[in-house]
Amino acid sequence: MMHTRPHVVIIGGGFGGLEAAKSLAKAPVDITLIDKTNHHLFQPLLYQVATAGLAAPAIAAPTRSLFRHQANLTTLLSEVTDIDAKDKKVHLSDGSTLVFDHLIVAAGATHSYFGHDEWSAFAPGLKTLEDAFEIRRQVLFAFESAEKEPDPEKRQNWLTLCVIGAGPTGVEMAGAFAEIARQTLVGEFRRINPHDARILLIEGGPRVLQAMPESLSQKALEQLQKLGVEVRLNAIVTGIDATGLQVRGPAPAGVMGTVDYRIASQCVVWAAGVAASSLGQKLADNTGCKIDRAGRVVVSSDLSLPGHPDIYVIGDLALAMSHSSGKSPTAVPGVSPGAKQMGRWAANNLLQRLAGKPTRAFKYADYGNLATIGHNAAVVDLSTPFGPVRFSGRWAWWFWLLAHIYFLIGFRNRLVVLMDWGSAYLSFSRNARVVAGTLHKSAPHVGES
Amino acid sequence: MMHTRPHVVIIGGGFGGLEAAKSLAKAPVDITLIDKTNHHLFQPLLYQVATAGLAAPAIAAPTRSLFRHQANLTTLLSEVTDIDAKDKKVHLSDGSTLVFDHLIVAAGATHSYFGHDEWSAFAPGLKTLEDAFEIRRQVLFAFESAEKEPDPEKRQNWLTLCVIGAGPTGVEMAGAFAEIARQTLVGEFRRINPHDARILLIEGGPRVLQAMPESLSQKALEQLQKLGVEVRLNAIVTGIDATGLQVRGPAPAGVMGTVDYRIASQCVVWAAGVAASSLGQKLADNTGCKIDRAGRVVVSSDLSLPGHPDIYVIGDLALAMSHSSGKSPTAVPGVSPGAKQMGRWAANNLLQRLAGKPTRAFKYADYGNLATIGHNAAVVDLSTPFGPVRFSGRWAWWFWLLAHIYFLIGFRNRLVVLMDWGSAYLSFSRNARVVAGTLHKSAPHVGES
Repeated sequence: MMHTRPHVVIIGGGFGGLEAAKSLAKAPVDITLIDKTNHHLFQPLLYQVATAGLAAPAIAAPTRSLFRHQANLTTLLSEVTDIDAKDKKVHLSDGSTLVFDHLIVAAGATHSYFGHDEWSAFAPGLKTLEDAFEIRRQVLFAFESAEKEPDPEKRQNWLTLCVIGAGPTGVEMAGAFAEIARQTLVGEFRRINPHDARILLIEGGPRVLQAMPESLSQKALEQLQKLGVEVRLNAIVTGIDATGLQVRGPAPAGVMGTVDYRIASQCVVWAAGVAASSLGQKLADNTGCKIDRAGRVVVSSDLSLPGHPDIYVIGDLALAMSHSSGKSPTAVPGVSPGAKQMGRWAANNLLQRLAGKPTRAFKYADYGNLATIGHNAAVVDLSTPFGPVRFSGRWAWWFWLLAHIYFLIGFRNRLVVLMDWGSAYLSFSRNARVVAGTLHKSAPHVGES
Repeated sequence: MMHTRPHVVIIGGGFGGLEAAKSLAKAPVDITLIDKTNHHLFQPLLYQVATAGLAAPAIAAPTRSLFRHQANLTTLLSEVTDIDAKDKKVHLSDGSTLVFDHLIVAAGATHSYFGHDEWSAFAPGLKTLEDAFEIRRQVLFAFESAEKEPDPEKRQNWLTLCVIGAGPTGVEMAGAFAEIARQTLVGEFRRINPHDARILLIEGGPRVLQAMPESLSQKALEQLQKLGVEVRLNAIVTGIDATGLQVRGPAPAGVMGTVDYRIASQCVVWAAGVAASSLGQKLADNTGCKIDRAGRVVVSSDLSLPGHPDIYVIGDLALAMSHSSGKSPTAVPGVSPGAKQMGRWAANNLLQRLAGKPTRAFKYADYGNLATIGHNAAVVDLSTPFGPVRFSGRWAWWFWLLAHIYFLIGFRNRLVVLMDWGSAYLSFSRNARVVAGTLHKSAPHVGES
């Protein structure tokens, strides 16, 4: 397609790409937004799809529909396989190429097994709707398999649910697993008692939610323990296979040093490592730009790729710094407000360049951080002009809930989520306890397929 | 597990199995309900999941949860591979067996390609949630692929959507496809006009909805045509492959006889043939009972398996007759009220036998028949004590809608479905336009995997 106006290509329809695209709505440019799925995913609530609290369409909006009224934008369902920064074109998976004048790379991140990709078969991560369905299937079918298992030891292995990594996703997932076992499923089984399930949260660092202040990490730990989650800190996972995981961690109380031990478990979820999209590596290969160990691209202060002022890298794929006057630059955290702000900032810098004006150094506005643990349990750390405001428990939970409803896209989705949460709050029911497949198609632990 | 009370095994958690299980709630028996999925599916609305109108959890309820309070029932997620009528046991897919005193086989039906199983790769049928997701993906991605296709002929092939079979499911699906093309997607594409999509409904018989009176078939045909669906009657599909289908049907107007022709299409849905579960064939092999060409078991007047009074076969797997005094027996149609009534009847006959009393011949109460075509378009044929009541159009559509809401299980599901339909009615939006996979994982037409 010929473009008479500058052609802006945006790779990725996540928080960063979406904000960049919206910010260019009135600009004299033609935009192509490329995503490999047909929807924008509200990632902060993906764990709710994985834990059977919400249906997928409640947190996913068709990208094409979101931009129905933005006439300067066309949506393309495709996957970018490479970026040619010199000739200014992107290569698509169907073999075609797309020429750009300006490029915004917002391809996001995926989970990383720290070089142990063989673990992925036994410990799914959580980044896409497919991941969420796989986790939902594993946790619900673990209870089904336990109900059928005559051998008490094997039965307990099915009832041992492990979450690796105690960042926000790991904490949310462990909390939700505990609620499923202690509340949702109560009274539904005839041979097992779901209450016998053990939920383990295994964290390599010294505390949960390490991005939070220490006092809130402590609060979160207490709330997890109250829900019945066994939290293992300073515990490194050294192996995962079909029947469990190998851990190196602190010796039992009273004993010094570390020990190696095994946890027999048939349901393991990976929430530990994040790696940037492989497009970061491609950009490094093609332009010589620097990437960090997680594959994130080190960007210039204006979010552009060093030496390529018409290419911006934003969101989880970017290692960006925030520049405030009079302060030394600080790293921008990999959270959705960061991605959104970078999207808007990159779009504005693009317009500055179009107008022949200088670009501006990115400044991140930090509004704080929040994480939920379960029913009436959350931690909130707000940055306000008057200093930090920190609270936890019931009010933090309500604050978390309202913030997420507010940022969800679409009136209908807000209503559905509110309704499902309302009924879950009152009855502990979970409204999406549906697995599309049968047992045999869907238990890689058993069939090893 | 040892049973001190008679052990009733029910195979299948569809309409028939569910009603049988509920009817035995207060009986002095132990029940095991076996299903290969973890949910009861409200089949009449499955086409809405396939056509992106509803999310899966809105029409699927976890079986285990439905029977939480029925203490004499245990749910088993498993698949029955064979039935040993002599030794009274069922074989499960994990190699174990289950001994029964009474058995109710309600294993339902699947789609049949009339001996052409190779067509299944190109024309998915609609029986399970997985089928629905596959159809949703094919129809939504057909428009995405058309948008990307530079060649006008190939583009039109993507925009040619075919539905084979004009029973209720085929009619509903063709109507929904027409609404997607003419209403939902309008304004969202930049290169194609979704309005250019052709929707073909191909039927081997002389009219649509053959179970309906002829006047209503005619009304349905007119409503389909008004929606822009091209209906081909007396047209037999003789081949389906990756790029389209081969049809033998009436010659164009003015020409006598039949002609063979090809329809180039990349999106074909199969709604033509139904075959009973393969357990019908197993029963025939093991007991010598008769089955019809569709694999349905010919049952005795009391719904039991001939020669095996403790085994009942009900629902879509049974070829049952309705017995009214003074009239010759009539065949029971394969619809959900039929399955539900058989479920209750088989449970009652089982209790009669337990009490040493004679069983009763099944009598089907026919309340009529309804089918929807689209927005404000449906046909209703009610059987009342005062004779048949037939109507079509707007009021039939409202009647259809209220009946389906009424029979849906669960308050929450009713509310969600009403809400989604309300917004669809007002705005023609469809609230589940989400495909979990990416283009390449999910286009068997392209990758042939």
